[in-house]
Amino acid sequence: MNKVNLAEKLALISDHWNPRVVGELNGQHVKIVKFKGEFVWHDHADEDEMFLVVKGRFRMEFRDHAVDLKAGEFLIVPRGVEHRPVAAEEVEVLLFEPAGILHTGTVDSALTRREYEWI
Amino acid sequence: MNKVNLAEKLALISDHWNPRVVGELNGQHVKIVKFKGEFVWHDHADEDEMFLVVKGRFRMEFRDHAVDLKAGEFLIVPRGVEHRPVAAEEVEVLLFEPAGILHTGTVDSALTRREYEWI
Repeated sequence: MNKVNLAEKLALISDHWNPRVVGELNGQHVKIVKFKGEFVWHDHADEDEMFLVVKGRFRMEFRDHAVDLKAGEFLIVPRGVEHRPVAAEEVEVLLFEPAGILHTGTVDSALTRREYEWI
Repeated sequence: MNKVNLAEKLALISDHWNPRVVGELNGQHVKIVKFKGEFVWHDHADEDEMFLVVKGRFRMEFRDHAVDLKAGEFLIVPRGVEHRPVAAEEVEVLLFEPAGILHTGTVDSALTRREYEWI
């Protein structure tokens, strides 16, 4: 049982759109990720997904609106809702979501990761 | 689907040891709480519990050691492990745990809350 320092773990990450696992509880994963640029449109049929901004800002786009998020703010995207994160500048994000989720949902993209590394 | 600003929500709380719900996903609750002083020793038989410090610092005591946590750090306390948060000064904490958990576990304390208010 060790504490996790988010800034220290985030400093280990230099790539984008590649979530790493930093904790697990009750079948859920805590992940950290850096976004920059545009992700792919996707949804998750069976999983809600939480995005908490640690540093920076990004926009979560939906098909009919968008939500701007900055450090200290979070958004929960309900299952089944199409979304696409877009970050003009690099942003550091904490994710809470069920273990086993695929971050691109059913969309098979060049960005799709099928395994998530612990960091 | 609205974003949550943690500082704005925390500014609404003036009491201690009284978690409020700010989000729900996949059967889990996201809560915020302010600690000050010593909580009661307790455990949760079936739930892991995550503590992420938003502002300030506190010590998580276990029967055989303790972990000091400051802003930007989190700790996951596994189910069945007795623990007691202690905060010399007021600290703001984000909790991630299954909906329906009792924050004092099976310990019936003057601090026990049986319902958690959304804020």
